[in-house]
Amino acid sequence: MYNDDKLHEECGVFGAWYTAGNQAAEDIYYGLMALQHRGQESAGIAVCDTVGERGNLCLRKDMGLVSEVFRGEDLEGLKGNIGVGHVRYSTTGASNIENAQPLAFYYLKGTLALVHNGNIVNAGELRKDLFNEGTVLRGTTDSEVLTCIIAKERAKSGSIEEAIKKTTAYLKGGYAIIVMSPRKLIAMRDPLGLKPLCLGKNEKGYVIASESCALTAAGAKFLRDVEPGEIITISKNGLVSDKELCGGTHAHCVFEYIYFSRLDSKLDGRAVYDARFKSGMLLAREYPVEADIVTGVPESGLTAAAGYAKEAGIPFVQVFNKNSYVGRTFIKPTQKERENAVHVKLSVIESTVKDKNVVIIDDSIVRGTTIAGLIKRLKEAGAKAVHVRISSPPFLYPCYYGTDVPDNSSLIANNMDIEEIRTRIGADSLGYLTLEHLSEMTDGLPLCKACFDGKYPVL
Amino acid sequence: MYNDDKLHEECGVFGAWYTAGNQAAEDIYYGLMALQHRGQESAGIAVCDTVGERGNLCLRKDMGLVSEVFRGEDLEGLKGNIGVGHVRYSTTGASNIENAQPLAFYYLKGTLALVHNGNIVNAGELRKDLFNEGTVLRGTTDSEVLTCIIAKERAKSGSIEEAIKKTTAYLKGGYAIIVMSPRKLIAMRDPLGLKPLCLGKNEKGYVIASESCALTAAGAKFLRDVEPGEIITISKNGLVSDKELCGGTHAHCVFEYIYFSRLDSKLDGRAVYDARFKSGMLLAREYPVEADIVTGVPESGLTAAAGYAKEAGIPFVQVFNKNSYVGRTFIKPTQKERENAVHVKLSVIESTVKDKNVVIIDDSIVRGTTIAGLIKRLKEAGAKAVHVRISSPPFLYPCYYGTDVPDNSSLIANNMDIEEIRTRIGADSLGYLTLEHLSEMTDGLPLCKACFDGKYPVL
Amino acid sequence: MYNDDKLHEECGVFGAWYTAGNQAAEDIYYGLMALQHRGQESAGIAVCDTVGERGNLCLRKDMGLVSEVFRGEDLEGLKGNIGVGHVRYSTTGASNIENAQPLAFYYLKGTLALVHNGNIVNAGELRKDLFNEGTVLRGTTDSEVLTCIIAKERAKSGSIEEAIKKTTAYLKGGYAIIVMSPRKLIAMRDPLGLKPLCLGKNEKGYVIASESCALTAAGAKFLRDVEPGEIITISKNGLVSDKELCGGTHAHCVFEYIYFSRLDSKLDGRAVYDARFKSGMLLAREYPVEADIVTGVPESGLTAAAGYAKEAGIPFVQVFNKNSYVGRTFIKPTQKERENAVHVKLSVIESTVKDKNVVIIDDSIVRGTTIAGLIKRLKEAGAKAVHVRISSPPFLYPCYYGTDVPDNSSLIANNMDIEEIRTRIGADSLGYLTLEHLSEMTDGLPLCKACFDGKYPVL
Amino acid sequence: MYNDDKLHEECGVFGAWYTAGNQAAEDIYYGLMALQHRGQESAGIAVCDTVGERGNLCLRKDMGLVSEVFRGEDLEGLKGNIGVGHVRYSTTGASNIENAQPLAFYYLKGTLALVHNGNIVNAGELRKDLFNEGTVLRGTTDSEVLTCIIAKERAKSGSIEEAIKKTTAYLKGGYAIIVMSPRKLIAMRDPLGLKPLCLGKNEKGYVIASESCALTAAGAKFLRDVEPGEIITISKNGLVSDKELCGGTHAHCVFEYIYFSRLDSKLDGRAVYDARFKSGMLLAREYPVEADIVTGVPESGLTAAAGYAKEAGIPFVQVFNKNSYVGRTFIKPTQKERENAVHVKLSVIESTVKDKNVVIIDDSIVRGTTIAGLIKRLKEAGAKAVHVRISSPPFLYPCYYGTDVPDNSSLIANNMDIEEIRTRIGADSLGYLTLEHLSEMTDGLPLCKACFDGKYPVL
Repeated sequence: MYNDDKLHEECGVFGAWYTAGNQAAEDIYYGLMALQHRGQESAGIAVCDTVGERGNLCLRKDMGLVSEVFRGEDLEGLKGNIGVGHVRYSTTGASNIENAQPLAFYYLKGTLALVHNGNIVNAGELRKDLFNEGTVLRGTTDSEVLTCIIAKERAKSGSIEEAIKKTTAYLKGGYAIIVMSPRKLIAMRDPLGLKPLCLGKNEKGYVIASESCALTAAGAKFLRDVEPGEIITISKNGLVSDKELCGGTHAHCVFEYIYFSRLDSKLDGRAVYDARFKSGMLLAREYPVEADIVTGVPESGLTAAAGYAKEAGIPFVQVFNKNSYVGRTFIKPTQKERENAVHVKLSVIESTVKDKNVVIIDDSIVRGTTIAGLIKRLKEAGAKAVHVRISSPPFLYPCYYGTDVPDNSSLIANNMDIEEIRTRIGADSLGYLTLEHLSEMTDGLPLCKACFDGKYPVL
Repeated sequence: MYNDDKLHEECGVFGAWYTAGNQAAEDIYYGLMALQHRGQESAGIAVCDTVGERGNLCLRKDMGLVSEVFRGEDLEGLKGNIGVGHVRYSTTGASNIENAQPLAFYYLKGTLALVHNGNIVNAGELRKDLFNEGTVLRGTTDSEVLTCIIAKERAKSGSIEEAIKKTTAYLKGGYAIIVMSPRKLIAMRDPLGLKPLCLGKNEKGYVIASESCALTAAGAKFLRDVEPGEIITISKNGLVSDKELCGGTHAHCVFEYIYFSRLDSKLDGRAVYDARFKSGMLLAREYPVEADIVTGVPESGLTAAAGYAKEAGIPFVQVFNKNSYVGRTFIKPTQKERENAVHVKLSVIESTVKDKNVVIIDDSIVRGTTIAGLIKRLKEAGAKAVHVRISSPPFLYPCYYGTDVPDNSSLIANNMDIEEIRTRIGADSLGYLTLEHLSEMTDGLPLCKACFDGKYPVL
Repeated sequence: MYNDDKLHEECGVFGAWYTAGNQAAEDIYYGLMALQHRGQESAGIAVCDTVGERGNLCLRKDMGLVSEVFRGEDLEGLKGNIGVGHVRYSTTGASNIENAQPLAFYYLKGTLALVHNGNIVNAGELRKDLFNEGTVLRGTTDSEVLTCIIAKERAKSGSIEEAIKKTTAYLKGGYAIIVMSPRKLIAMRDPLGLKPLCLGKNEKGYVIASESCALTAAGAKFLRDVEPGEIITISKNGLVSDKELCGGTHAHCVFEYIYFSRLDSKLDGRAVYDARFKSGMLLAREYPVEADIVTGVPESGLTAAAGYAKEAGIPFVQVFNKNSYVGRTFIKPTQKERENAVHVKLSVIESTVKDKNVVIIDDSIVRGTTIAGLIKRLKEAGAKAVHVRISSPPFLYPCYYGTDVPDNSSLIANNMDIEEIRTRIGADSLGYLTLEHLSEMTDGLPLCKACFDGKYPVL
Repeated sequence: MYNDDKLHEECGVFGAWYTAGNQAAEDIYYGLMALQHRGQESAGIAVCDTVGERGNLCLRKDMGLVSEVFRGEDLEGLKGNIGVGHVRYSTTGASNIENAQPLAFYYLKGTLALVHNGNIVNAGELRKDLFNEGTVLRGTTDSEVLTCIIAKERAKSGSIEEAIKKTTAYLKGGYAIIVMSPRKLIAMRDPLGLKPLCLGKNEKGYVIASESCALTAAGAKFLRDVEPGEIITISKNGLVSDKELCGGTHAHCVFEYIYFSRLDSKLDGRAVYDARFKSGMLLAREYPVEADIVTGVPESGLTAAAGYAKEAGIPFVQVFNKNSYVGRTFIKPTQKERENAVHVKLSVIESTVKDKNVVIIDDSIVRGTTIAGLIKRLKEAGAKAVHVRISSPPFLYPCYYGTDVPDNSSLIANNMDIEEIRTRIGADSLGYLTLEHLSEMTDGLPLCKACFDGKYPVL
């Protein structure tokens, strides 16, 4: 698929707690539509009616986009005033309906639904412990392990939120989870803040989402980010925050700003748009060049390109036409080289680049095939020179917290130095944003940059 | 649906243990085809390769007939030398893929698959016990409860067969189960023998099935019935039988002979064909009548009709043509009365009944709509009189061991006496096989007749 | 597929002309259900509302059984008081939706729908003539050729029935067609009467069908057969019969009685049941044998077997259990020999044949694989001897009038004499109904027996 | 659907004539992907193998996007060295597979396939003439009428290209057609040049397409536009051009430049990008305004916005994030007002507009709901003022040449003057490009502007 030359976030989560009515599913639907970029493999919504009978859980999930999973009258069957939703992109081969979320189970107190973004580093050990106690598991996800531990803790504790708190003691890794018990919604963010989670409010009640853009989509105002380590419980008694596990050092995933999060989101106090615009400005200062126009690789490179253009005083020009009908279902008839597939999606508007020196910005280089294809097309269209600027450092280390990264051998930066990469992709010059300047794009926010420097905050 | 005027068995199970090769799935497929009459809602097969790696379980299950679930290359993907299969008819609303079997889980020793025919009477209590220990359940079936208990017992026992034996101590009800652990097949039949289970052998190894017809379909010879209470374990060490729980009183389901089992099966030493033929003979003795021809309601009434014809010395004649293309997908365009739907499936061959006195045999009357429709058609075709004979007593009590019975208000025998039923269905005379003579059809085999007399062997 | 060892009729047609209301589609649906045995590849219904606007044709057709093509609310969308329906079995590779019927077109007078059973022998020449006049054709069927000629004649004639009459002058072959113009239904049967067609009436109006069983299914009384060469026009002016083309010699397809038509149909004055019963009696006279029981190959051999049993004074016994869940979708996992597939569908009830001398009747032997498989199973079940009787002569010549026959090399009778066939199939004796006695089964009705004697009534 | 607030082009056509090989289908597939914006309802490809047997036509077409219709191995089944392809958007209710193209027929010389973009104004009369000659038609499209006339002319002429030339004498309207006979490809453009068509060449042979972007997608170089009135015939004898019907006045559809054609296409000597950029510059001159930023409605308004920004000296800023996962399948759960649906697709990046005076450019206003929704969101995000500029004149008249326009009552410009529209949509100022300056955007090319001024070049 075309997108194979990109990194991928694994999931997006959404929760709603409304005092009454049946609109939870509809707002979760809109929220998931806004989080679709975080996972396109499966989608699901589970709701409960807390006003009526306990444990009346309704669930619908399937492989596909949100708009494919929920059609026609599907939402009307999901009656309830509280609920959770999930979009998933799977990194492993286990891309099947068994692993789609929300996970939903019967347990001591009725029904339990869980949505999870992130990765539990020690899931394998926890799994073994469960087996030794006689537990059966239906799948291979860390999310199911998490759910089983919560249920076990609940049998020993006085409340579901207490059980969740105890569960976190077992966990290493990055996670943002939302649990729906028959009458409560509990949200938890990992103490490092690796995965984003934020809180909003509309006239019907509270909503919780991976990104602020999803709050807006559900007609809600952004209240605040959930703090790293915070446990929020929403019930008919209102919202209760437990911050006992907060207060450690933070390590927010830098790739949320570089590429994963949506351009109109704001995470931990920083607007994604501003961070990307600034990364372009930083690039312009680090790697200035004589050029006629600046452009970006749609969509993710455009904002950094605008920043570069502004800082460099060179006009920004839209050079590529993006074919918006090339979807996930696009098949390449023959197995030609990956480069060719690029120009089905992106084509060059010839008159904009003819006889021009062009600066082109992208957020990262994974395999290098996309950028190489684009440079070739630009030159065929008459560009005199093509200068490539990348708004992040070279990607060198695997991620253990829930980002899908191709294996090492596919990562161009793992196998070549910058000059070799420049030659391979056919650029006239090439510059990566340096590690030193990286944190300037988020104004000094504590970041996890392990994929660039190999310094993992937790293992 | 047309068949709504019938009782329904809930499930059929099949298992295969072959020393090597990959043919388990294919033979299970043929076995399930032969057990299809026991359940048409979902079908599934799980296999393991015991020669290769432990726990390499492959599973495929879906809603639909065996021939719909397994198509084209599906079977080739199920590589393994041991396996279990299941066909299901669900009585409750929970007719969904979640409840389809085989159930398959990861557990302490690798993978665990289970197929189950029957009903655990005390499943509700067992479920509560599991919840109190912190267990989560994904569905509402007693089969999952059973699996979870087995896994818990396994964590405390030395082998899976020992765990199963301990599990039976918890269980009340009727059940025939087959469990596949990574390297073993374990079969268990309830101590009363309510549900049938038998053992066969072909050149590849052992097979186990709900009915003997499925052994034949898998190219195997019938060895013997699994004894009520027996636990059979098959592994590379051969077949081991544990009969410690055997020896109590037996109560075989009489409806297996009357209607559920296939005409060419033999259960607990009695051929189904012979039992039905004899029931017709008994009817002829209890309710003789002057008539020109004897016929049966296809298919289930035909054998008893042949028996009646022989005993009464009246010729047996095929009076109905059965439309073999009327399947489960048949929809009745308008909601006309149920009677009308009958003649889409069965039409009368006029020349056979014109000016004749007709005896017609059926195995039971549930709602009475089918037989009423047929009598009406026979009279329209010129029959002078229609005498109805039923090869079982009036159905009066619910079944708790796994047979789907319409609720009481729908059961015609619960609301009318025999004369009222005769009038309602438009018969010239009506006779039910009496409770006294019922056991003669199976030559004195100890039977569960609770649906006729309300005497439940276990609750 | 299992059925490959059978001959196949190609089509069934149905038409309804009701004075008012919207029930045409529903009754056609029931009629087609009753004609399903004549074709299982595609099904379709077209209706018009003659009370409202002219030419308001609604059509639905698709690949599959009637019950698969029409589901849920489909019939409600087909509003009209007149209509035609069709079930199709295609002999050629062109088994696609393009060739499904009813064919529907716009033409001079509005819309034109046509259904057709049979085969036009000179379709190739007619096709060429159309091309020379500048006509385009969308498919390869003779039915489209027929429709185009009718439309052309209509442009030159005063009425659609006149155009149809002129069209028949061009046609060689066997056909039963029903045409629906915006306000009329016109039925036409070929002058030889090769293909059946009959007329019925219910309280709503007239119905026309390939077989009488379909009239009954639509709640109609049989009025009479359409005469060979007759053109019937039904409109608001009532039913008009034009018999100008009648009066030649007749040649009714003998296979309609032997196998194609449904057991409860009556064609050209002869009941199918009676013809088959008599064929069994004739066989008993031609080939008597010492035996304990007589049985038939389900379903088509059962009636002849009953006739044989009666004439021979040997009891008829049901020996095979038929698996009614083995449908068209049944796939054989591996490409084993065809014989094996037989016993998935038919299994032997052991106790009925053990130590018995068995006579088994079938209607024909095409490839011989089915009967060979059954004989093998009977002997495995303990039958001492198996005597095969076939209720038709050996099949030797292709049919040009619309019956699908495997090519010569597959026809066992074309490659072996009777003794060789007996050896090949493993029978202890074998007898075919002789050509001399064949017409006795239909009491002297003039028959087309070309498939047995090569004497084609028209080419 | 979201896109309902837009005008729609009806079709795109593509043809390939290669000297040998089987790559026609693959290149047509790529070409159709590039033309997908011209029609998303159905797609199809027909190919012939001219090297092998005559008339070996393979066709595949279905409802849906190109990427939905052609999956997996589909293209490999389409073997041939010449072919035609089509994408369709239907204006009428007849959005069904019957009307999907290529149309394919058998005719005098073998097979005939036709693809057509445009509308024949006098199709109704031509249809009647065909009926009077006894022709049947299967659908209601003018494209089938066209095909039937060509076949009739072919029966009287010496070649297919001659037949096509004679056919054009009957036709009024705008059309670009490509016909594939067994061995030739013939392309024809209407004498006014209403519909675009251009010619390209790659190493395998010739390609013809509605837009130049599709030539590039098929790896071909643009040779030239097909001239209005020109007939191009490509066969093994090479390319022959017949320009006898050329030379009249021209009237190119102005909406191809404003909105329909792809940004990277060049039609009749004018680059679409340049025309749109210039329209923005013209707007800046006609309607200058004090503002902080200029933006455009994605995607169609962005280029004109860049032009406005440059001419006005105000920075261009990307203000909207477009959700690229909102496809055609998107359903709005409840029937809220259309405005709401807008922000699922387009969301505002708050930091870019807060406290800013914003100029926003769109290509046209159809119903006004989209722009009203966007203005509301901009103001909610803190924009001080929103000035709307439209890069075309008010849309007032229906199009008879193949553009889908909502009926008059839905067109906001038909019911309100500009000041009323401004108030309704909530803009602070509103300016439409004037009719006087319209042709400047294409440097004086003769245009059909009937939708703006009601002057139809042919009726």
